[in-house]
Amino acid sequence: MQVAMISDKIVPLAELEPVYCDRGIYFGDGVYEVVRSYNGKIFALKEHLQRFDRNLSVIEIVGVNIDQICSRIKKAFDAAGISNAKIYFHVTRGSALRSHTWEAGLKPNFFLTVMELPDNTEEKTKGVAVSTHPDWRWKRCDIKSLNLLANVLARQDAAQKGCSEAILVDDRDLITEGAGSTFFAVSGQTLQTAPLTTNILPSITRKFVIEAGKNIGLEIVEKSLTPQQASCADELFIAVTTKDIVPVVEFDGRVIRNGKPGRYTKLLIQEFHSFTS
Amino acid sequence: MQVAMISDKIVPLAELEPVYCDRGIYFGDGVYEVVRSYNGKIFALKEHLQRFDRNLSVIEIVGVNIDQICSRIKKAFDAAGISNAKIYFHVTRGSALRSHTWEAGLKPNFFLTVMELPDNTEEKTKGVAVSTHPDWRWKRCDIKSLNLLANVLARQDAAQKGCSEAILVDDRDLITEGAGSTFFAVSGQTLQTAPLTTNILPSITRKFVIEAGKNIGLEIVEKSLTPQQASCADELFIAVTTKDIVPVVEFDGRVIRNGKPGRYTKLLIQEFHSFTS
Repeated sequence: MQVAMISDKIVPLAELEPVYCDRGIYFGDGVYEVVRSYNGKIFALKEHLQRFDRNLSVIEIVGVNIDQICSRIKKAFDAAGISNAKIYFHVTRGSALRSHTWEAGLKPNFFLTVMELPDNTEEKTKGVAVSTHPDWRWKRCDIKSLNLLANVLARQDAAQKGCSEAILVDDRDLITEGAGSTFFAVSGQTLQTAPLTTNILPSITRKFVIEAGKNIGLEIVEKSLTPQQASCADELFIAVTTKDIVPVVEFDGRVIRNGKPGRYTKLLIQEFHSFTS
Repeated sequence: MQVAMISDKIVPLAELEPVYCDRGIYFGDGVYEVVRSYNGKIFALKEHLQRFDRNLSVIEIVGVNIDQICSRIKKAFDAAGISNAKIYFHVTRGSALRSHTWEAGLKPNFFLTVMELPDNTEEKTKGVAVSTHPDWRWKRCDIKSLNLLANVLARQDAAQKGCSEAILVDDRDLITEGAGSTFFAVSGQTLQTAPLTTNILPSITRKFVIEAGKNIGLEIVEKSLTPQQASCADELFIAVTTKDIVPVVEFDGRVIRNGKPGRYTKLLIQEFHSFTS
């Protein structure tokens, strides 16, 4: 008799609950999104759902109705009643006995959480430290998939160094992005970040930061930086859905300028908040 | 109130079953092994457990007792009573609300299945076709982790082309390995496969194939092949725990020699079986 075992408990394989055979856990075979609300209003949901839909297509997960996903998000958000909420959701290809290839007709699994966002005024006011880590991720970081072990190991390494984020550096000594954020530098009146390639997540927050940058008169340069160039920039910051813009005041132990959030970074935070209010 | 949603069902986050917050599904934050039995006897369990233990260490999953894992495997295998069984098991870092960084003291989750291995006499007798796919995997393929989406997409692509396995090719046009196997070529009296680097899984079956190769008088060369070189080899085969050696008779649509399993491949299969009987 074919069996499964969960911790010390043996069960017939035929009686195993589908959640234990989720292709998400066997392979990371799924895609996810994180959206947030500002004062009771979900920001940029349409953009996140468009990206999610595209990611599902790229990895050929079919049978997901994006309008239904949108309704579920709104329903859960309303049920939670949290003003500044972080909404995480993923869809995996479905539950099946482990096989790399998948059968047509598999029913995708949907999962979502709505959580309270912690106040991050202090991070925004004082700025954070970041440290670099080799970019070990796969070659399709443009897909927001559940394969995140490289990100996890890099972020943990940063935390162990007392840093808030790991800045990933590729084999050519170029910064790609943060383990869970986009990395930006300001030098003079130029706002610089890596160009969108298959090594970079097309971040929604990145898009709005660039728009904010244009609005305040910065020139936008989409070109990768080396860690050396980053540590000599006038200002650094990271951008991520849950926190929008967070100033970076220390890079691999080197204090950036006077060690305080830069002038343009503060202007960008203000401008960004004009989008979210 | 913080909530979770599974399909259309909303539950308070505090009441969510831990299996839904497994870091395995959020991040692929775990490692796995596959072992098999031949005629009621598990093959190379010690070697697999050593690798598993090392992989746990590398990604810093602590608190796993390998002797306990070994006992569980034997207990489940005995309970199943399957002579030629495939035993899959994984350990994830544990269940927790989603955060890239992990807290000390998290309790790892163990999961295992014992399944009947299908008869693969036909594959072994006739050989199989393979096709190439870009190697999209992360830079630490020496770790047998649950981040397998690149492998899944490559294998599915192969299946859609009527092939049994995807042979992964890196940016330098060098074959690394199969999506779920090691790739070997025989030319003259030389047995060639890629050297063990961080891009290659240190396969247990690979180790035994090399031993078998030495036993039958082949010279072992650990050097990567290009697809062009592979398609001109005398013989090709893949090696994987569940099937040991499977002859490859077609490579990207090109028939290898007379399209039948090669002489040395057949000798290697025989020699390998002397280890497992």
